[in-house]
Amino acid sequence: MEKKIVTISRQFGSGGRSIGKAVAEKLGVPYYDKELICQVAERTGLDTRYIEEQGEYAAGRTFFSYAFAYPGPQDAMGGMSVSDFLWTAQRQVILDLAEKGPCVIVGRCADYILRERKDCLHVFVHADTDFRCERIVRLYGESERSPEERLRDKDGRRAVNYKHFTGREWGECTNYHLTLNSGVIGVDRCVDLIASLAEKEKEQP
Amino acid sequence: MEKKIVTISRQFGSGGRSIGKAVAEKLGVPYYDKELICQVAERTGLDTRYIEEQGEYAAGRTFFSYAFAYPGPQDAMGGMSVSDFLWTAQRQVILDLAEKGPCVIVGRCADYILRERKDCLHVFVHADTDFRCERIVRLYGESERSPEERLRDKDGRRAVNYKHFTGREWGECTNYHLTLNSGVIGVDRCVDLIASLAEKEKEQP
Repeated sequence: MEKKIVTISRQFGSGGRSIGKAVAEKLGVPYYDKELICQVAERTGLDTRYIEEQGEYAAGRTFFSYAFAYPGPQDAMGGMSVSDFLWTAQRQVILDLAEKGPCVIVGRCADYILRERKDCLHVFVHADTDFRCERIVRLYGESERSPEERLRDKDGRRAVNYKHFTGREWGECTNYHLTLNSGVIGVDRCVDLIASLAEKEKEQP
Repeated sequence: MEKKIVTISRQFGSGGRSIGKAVAEKLGVPYYDKELICQVAERTGLDTRYIEEQGEYAAGRTFFSYAFAYPGPQDAMGGMSVSDFLWTAQRQVILDLAEKGPCVIVGRCADYILRERKDCLHVFVHADTDFRCERIVRLYGESERSPEERLRDKDGRRAVNYKHFTGREWGECTNYHLTLNSGVIGVDRCVDLIASLAEKEKEQP
């Protein structure tokens, strides 16, 4: 079966986002990341920067950090915490985008949200610490914290968020159809490989 | 860098062994499974059937099941349990085989044992339960126990053994360069993919 929708989960610094963009270009389908955030903002009234920061890291925060984050009337959230409100809206946007047609979606537990669909290829991209440290310093610059600490923090929060909302382990290979070490395999090769699997039925009619 | 040695770990019933054999044929390199067992037998004096059964499932057993399994003089094991004796011998055979040249090695924690080498491609093959149940009944026949139970038992013991000897989680994707769902991707496609990654430098000189 042709895999029309590609979801990409990724360790911070592994190049998963760049790989997702390149796969979408290669397949000629939309790539959802920022656009997804805009749609969630429209649906919820939450600030795009807030969604970008919290959409994958929400579950670790306390209730109070949410209560102040939402600018609208509290009852618009139907009694949910901002965390659950954001999850519910984000989930619906992802389900709607998948209905619209072939696409690439990066992050945001899309692999779990779309797990019942048979037309998805679920991918996880990771890499060794050295490769990722070098990459984040090159792309995002130095910071007060060591690159190792930045990786640990961001991936730790992604893992907690994933576990909280899905009940599954982030990075457990049975959750994905394909996992790749981008440092060993190479970013370009990862792109070719994912794209060729996504359109395999086109090649073999 | 060319990956001269391919290690394949696999869930029971996922087709990992068949994939390993086919990759070795495609690359024209030796495939180690039974031959590895014979070499361990030669080195240890243990029965080949015993090694085949225990080489990947040893750690869960009690001391007594070992004490009676070894037919030779107890001091030949240097005070080790049969379990540790078998692990040590198997580890050395795998290190020696890797020194000999390009090959495919299935199972037996070879991914961990060869983790320091830069010329290895470490692969894990898994598949959904339905796919694996159908496959083990077709290949190995029915048994008194349900196929689901047979999968759970065998994979559970592989996971315990792996954890015991390596300290790592079996099936955690960061232990492998590539993991594949053979049911979704297809066994033949898995073979092509692994073989092409193993010889990638040959294609791009």
